[in-house]
Amino acid sequence: MASLRDIVTSASINLLSAFGFLMAFAILRIQPFNDRVYFPRWYKKGTRSSPTRSGAYASKFVNLDCRTYLNFLNWMPAALRMPEPELIDHAGLDSVAYIRIYLLGLKIFVPLAVLSFMVLVPVNWIGDTLERAKDLNFSNIDKLSISNVPDGSKGFWAHIVMSYVFSFWTFYVLYSEYKVLATMRADYLASETRRPDQFTVLVRNIPPDPDESVSEHVQHFFCVNHPDHYLTHQIVYNANKLASLVSKKRDLQNWYIYYQNKFERTSKRPLTKTGFMGLWGTKVDAIDHYTSQIQKLNEEEAVERERVKKDPDAVVPAAFVSFKSRWAAAVCAQTQLCRNPTLWLTEWAPEPRDVYWDNFAIPYFELTIRRLIIAVALFFLIFFFMIPIAFVQSLANIEGIQKVFPFLKPLIQIESVKSVIQGFLPGIVLKIFLAVLPQILMTMSKIEGYPSISALDRKSAAKYHMFILVNIFLGSIITGSALQQLKTFIDLPPTEIPKTIGVYIPMKANFFITYIMVDGWAGVAAESLRLVPLVLFHLKNTFLVKTEQDRYEAMEPGSIDFPVGEPRIQLYILLGLVYAPITPFLLPFIIIFLAFAYVVFRNQVINVYDPKYESAAAFWPDVHKRVVIGLFISQLLLLGLLSTKKIGRNHFALLPLPVLTIWFFMYCKGRFESVFVRFPLQEAMVKDTLERATEPQFNLKAYLKDAYMHPVFKSSDVEKSDFTFEEEKSPLVATTRVATKLSPDVNSSSPVQSDA
Amino acid sequence: MASLRDIVTSASINLLSAFGFLMAFAILRIQPFNDRVYFPRWYKKGTRSSPTRSGAYASKFVNLDCRTYLNFLNWMPAALRMPEPELIDHAGLDSVAYIRIYLLGLKIFVPLAVLSFMVLVPVNWIGDTLERAKDLNFSNIDKLSISNVPDGSKGFWAHIVMSYVFSFWTFYVLYSEYKVLATMRADYLASETRRPDQFTVLVRNIPPDPDESVSEHVQHFFCVNHPDHYLTHQIVYNANKLASLVSKKRDLQNWYIYYQNKFERTSKRPLTKTGFMGLWGTKVDAIDHYTSQIQKLNEEEAVERERVKKDPDAVVPAAFVSFKSRWAAAVCAQTQLCRNPTLWLTEWAPEPRDVYWDNFAIPYFELTIRRLIIAVALFFLIFFFMIPIAFVQSLANIEGIQKVFPFLKPLIQIESVKSVIQGFLPGIVLKIFLAVLPQILMTMSKIEGYPSISALDRKSAAKYHMFILVNIFLGSIITGSALQQLKTFIDLPPTEIPKTIGVYIPMKANFFITYIMVDGWAGVAAESLRLVPLVLFHLKNTFLVKTEQDRYEAMEPGSIDFPVGEPRIQLYILLGLVYAPITPFLLPFIIIFLAFAYVVFRNQVINVYDPKYESAAAFWPDVHKRVVIGLFISQLLLLGLLSTKKIGRNHFALLPLPVLTIWFFMYCKGRFESVFVRFPLQEAMVKDTLERATEPQFNLKAYLKDAYMHPVFKSSDVEKSDFTFEEEKSPLVATTRVATKLSPDVNSSSPVQSDA
Repeated sequence: MASLRDIVTSASINLLSAFGFLMAFAILRIQPFNDRVYFPRWYKKGTRSSPTRSGAYASKFVNLDCRTYLNFLNWMPAALRMPEPELIDHAGLDSVAYIRIYLLGLKIFVPLAVLSFMVLVPVNWIGDTLERAKDLNFSNIDKLSISNVPDGSKGFWAHIVMSYVFSFWTFYVLYSEYKVLATMRADYLASETRRPDQFTVLVRNIPPDPDESVSEHVQHFFCVNHPDHYLTHQIVYNANKLASLVSKKRDLQNWYIYYQNKFERTSKRPLTKTGFMGLWGTKVDAIDHYTSQIQKLNEEEAVERERVKKDPDAVVPAAFVSFKSRWAAAVCAQTQLCRNPTLWLTEWAPEPRDVYWDNFAIPYFELTIRRLIIAVALFFLIFFFMIPIAFVQSLANIEGIQKVFPFLKPLIQIESVKSVIQGFLPGIVLKIFLAVLPQILMTMSKIEGYPSISALDRKSAAKYHMFILVNIFLGSIITGSALQQLKTFIDLPPTEIPKTIGVYIPMKANFFITYIMVDGWAGVAAESLRLVPLVLFHLKNTFLVKTEQDRYEAMEPGSIDFPVGEPRIQLYILLGLVYAPITPFLLPFIIIFLAFAYVVFRNQVINVYDPKYESAAAFWPDVHKRVVIGLFISQLLLLGLLSTKKIGRNHFALLPLPVLTIWFFMYCKGRFESVFVRFPLQEAMVKDTLERATEPQFNLKAYLKDAYMHPVFKSSDVEKSDFTFEEEKSPLVATTRVATKLSPDVNSSSPVQSDA
Repeated sequence: MASLRDIVTSASINLLSAFGFLMAFAILRIQPFNDRVYFPRWYKKGTRSSPTRSGAYASKFVNLDCRTYLNFLNWMPAALRMPEPELIDHAGLDSVAYIRIYLLGLKIFVPLAVLSFMVLVPVNWIGDTLERAKDLNFSNIDKLSISNVPDGSKGFWAHIVMSYVFSFWTFYVLYSEYKVLATMRADYLASETRRPDQFTVLVRNIPPDPDESVSEHVQHFFCVNHPDHYLTHQIVYNANKLASLVSKKRDLQNWYIYYQNKFERTSKRPLTKTGFMGLWGTKVDAIDHYTSQIQKLNEEEAVERERVKKDPDAVVPAAFVSFKSRWAAAVCAQTQLCRNPTLWLTEWAPEPRDVYWDNFAIPYFELTIRRLIIAVALFFLIFFFMIPIAFVQSLANIEGIQKVFPFLKPLIQIESVKSVIQGFLPGIVLKIFLAVLPQILMTMSKIEGYPSISALDRKSAAKYHMFILVNIFLGSIITGSALQQLKTFIDLPPTEIPKTIGVYIPMKANFFITYIMVDGWAGVAAESLRLVPLVLFHLKNTFLVKTEQDRYEAMEPGSIDFPVGEPRIQLYILLGLVYAPITPFLLPFIIIFLAFAYVVFRNQVINVYDPKYESAAAFWPDVHKRVVIGLFISQLLLLGLLSTKKIGRNHFALLPLPVLTIWFFMYCKGRFESVFVRFPLQEAMVKDTLERATEPQFNLKAYLKDAYMHPVFKSSDVEKSDFTFEEEKSPLVATTRVATKLSPDVNSSSPVQSDA
């Protein structure tokens, strides 16, 4: 076991590296030429244009004002300054709900830490088991942990009582937070301006009709069954091929612009090769080559566009059906239409930008088969993922590399390179797998057939959470592959499992403290630096950008990586809940992580991220569920640990806790979940009535006409306007951007520009 | 292990007793004086009146026609003759669905039996393990079971393959039966005539309003949120006290009539004692005493009736809200009204006669607490029920009885009585507990707060199913109390549990065969005899009946005892599924039970039962689920059993089966369940449109006005008319009954009167 000094050393190293990242961030972000990397949100909103500081040419790129370097950490208070309602306006409810997960963690753990240092640490300290057992190599940290309390001691009652206190406090925080989020979501939906998805329902599994086209069938069906409310509908085309043509064309256009720029700079017509990535093949004039390629694609695209529009087979048996009022849409989304419950399935339409267009054509039977397959695949991925990795690792050795890339042979033969490869390669293979894992999980979710990006994100997060739970949490406690763990679990009686794991828990505290510092502290600091977007932006800026419009498009603000980020926070919350009654010393590390991450992500949300969609915090029930799962696990593990402490049957005093936790979960589910799933008729009616009174002449049909058109059918201009429907009726604000994107939020937001 | 001869003996005894019951039934049912016990359904429907055979006085009571005694079993083909659509008309869909459970069992097990006798019995027979092990005491049955196949034999592949065949056949039958039932339910709902519950929604958890009464609040809320559709509403009074007064008065009236009759017969004014049950207290004139008592209660009742109607606190925060169309009611029942999902909860209103009036006032939080408590209580009831019984058994010995009832001392001292008490008392205590168990479970369901009798029945059945599963099925396999079993399960690894149970399965085949014969065969035969209603009817007929109306009310046709009957069928189906691949010899016994029960219950449904409610087979998803649970258990147990047979890892070939079973369950749930929970808008619209065209002038408001009035507020006449709303617009048929109940079904039904 590591001693306190080891922890201090590790903490210092990690603090230093985190500090280094922060320093780099502080310096880079105030350089004007990085402005679009660290403040893209404001550009996207149209309230910030290129650095306009007049003066020396140099100061356009490098910040020469020394004073700004002195208070380089003032972005932190600035990030905290924007009040929450304004932040919702500025970045959307999803972002605010996401950073509230960190706040939730802080609300749980600060009182827990105070309490456990006041009550449990003294109890642990008084017990002198470890001092008596002289032969054991113990550290000061262990003296503060439950391991120091002698077997059979009455001191364990403190842990039992505190476990109740901790659980009830967690219940309280979870409950009140769920309540706040439910209110925020309801208020947000109520205060929103008109949006197409409020009037629209996604209808899937439309049965084929021998006499009518899908469009006619939909129209007739809804005219009959919602006669007073049906307004219009839009059918969905299977435009996957067309979409791939369009994206291919965009690539070619980028290359074309690149060579065009090169030609303008060097006045020498650039050459390229026709083969893969321009690496081989015959040499041709690059500009001519790409012009002709684009021309060819344009023709293909036009043909395909016509085919999709005319071919009845290109119409998917799904449609976006719009109603005259929000009330009618709410009614239709929540009711069953047809006697056969697998036909005419209705659900709320996602936002137009949130639609995942590839998944509309799957019939019900296929859908359930897909989910079965993915469930089985996920099980194997979680428990057997080490097998293919071990296989790749066995291939990726020196000999393997020599075989595949013989030209690398001389390099590899160097002794130092060889040892590096042998030492790091297996680790790198694992790292690569873990890096592509979220992508694999996202693909699995896509196969499961969810119709919106937000749903895909939520489902991927659920899968990643299970992976982390088994392979990182349990995998670190019971060392060994998940496969071996699975075997352990299967061969142990149910009561033995918490016992076995519980016994290991106190020993692993030091490992997890280090993990929190490396993965948590340093990871968050690195997140603030945005190294990859920084490099990408400057590459693009150098080679592709000609106009302001190009520069605007070169920004990649990114968005919150929910499927990866949320399960990671859950891991820290789980660690905190597990260790709170066992090794309270771990709590401050988690609190520091949560507080630091809170500030960093608040800054990112304010200045950087541009959300892909707005689901109005639809993911909160998942967040709540996973914290409850963490609490449940922590209670079982404490029960298992105490059952080895020879305190008679007193540990059964903890048995009501898991039952209460399950009840708490079900109570909250009944109390709040439907706020995140359904839309109450009362609210819909209020909005409808209000709108009918204020804008009786509004032409809703025209407004909804093209809202749910597949993006490839829209001209570039139309495509953009559909991202801004929230703002289209708002007063315009002067901006230097050529794009049509304008924002009304200048008055309400306080841009964090002062320090730039 | 019992030998084949033991089984044959046991079978003969049980066959004889079953035959005895049947003979008694056949003779008693054709006696005219028992007509109202064995054919009450026809009386209730008004198509049959008192035996009108003219002739000798005696033949009014005793059947003197010898020919009818000869073909005494012809009720069986008669019971099978009525076609299903007619049976639905005659007895309702619930009854038809119930007897289809037996049919489902037959459809599963007849092919299974044929297959296993053709394939598995030869395989088992060839294996000669038991013959070789000469020291073992084996029977011929065991030679046909899987125990006869030697360890490591390739013969087990036959069992694995057949297990797949059995499972897929069961899937197929379950799926097609679910489909049939879903269609039947949808057709039934579509073909129904106008009923109040089609237009009505039950609204619960109405929030209190400081300025408005509940009634005003409901009206305003629905006028705002369903402006085009809201028609009327009825508030719910807390009339529990009034109801108890009314039922007390009815008791007193019965006593009054009894003494009145006695007086008329003997011309001597009867006396009674004022104390409990007329057992002690001062002697008074009985008729005067009851007249004054009834008078007093009448006054109390009038006061209470006024209080309930005027006191705002007597109004429960719930209401039955009616709409102008079925479409609007379907919409309201399926959507969320209020932002707070625990307020203004809506669901389909149950039929007026199905309403359970006591459970409307429970707020959401209390409801979840109640369910938590009941869940914990159920757990203890199932696993620890032997503890209080053992305690009572220890009290209920000779000494205990002598203490409590000293006057019984001389009787108990007789040696033979003493030994009977000592021998049977413990068993009787257990029997009494098992007899009151359904009542206990029903009380638990009532505490859980379901608003309709049909829901209470379904929930009680679910609880009883769990009890049977643990205490009868597992309890018989692993002998010992459920508490010991629980300990076994907790201390065993998850993989060991199916193994441990699986090993015992083949040994217990004989026990279960006997069980099927005693509980199944003889039980069903006893059911047909209706001994208790027979005795009760004749008692009432002798002492209470004066008019035809009294005699009509003295009939107690009863109804299908779903909460007890359905879980019992499930036990037999479970046994069949478990033993099909292990001891096929058990299957014929189950098939005989199912076929016999099918005929008997078809007869009961046609001639006897008068359903308490009509839920249109709403219980079928539960039936389906429990058969799937049985299938799942059988697969796990076979897996466990085979894992002890030393066939390497070949038993893992069975592992996909449980996964497939779970998937099958989820697929069917998505495919069919909503037919039993929701009402499609399309169907509602069709019925609305049809009705608007045929009866444009119908006054729906008047029709619905008193539909959902608490029964105690209705005069006796009104009360009856609400049971007959289905029939009120139908042509009347002459009947000798004085009651207002008349039926239109004479033309469509074929009364089984010919043999009476």
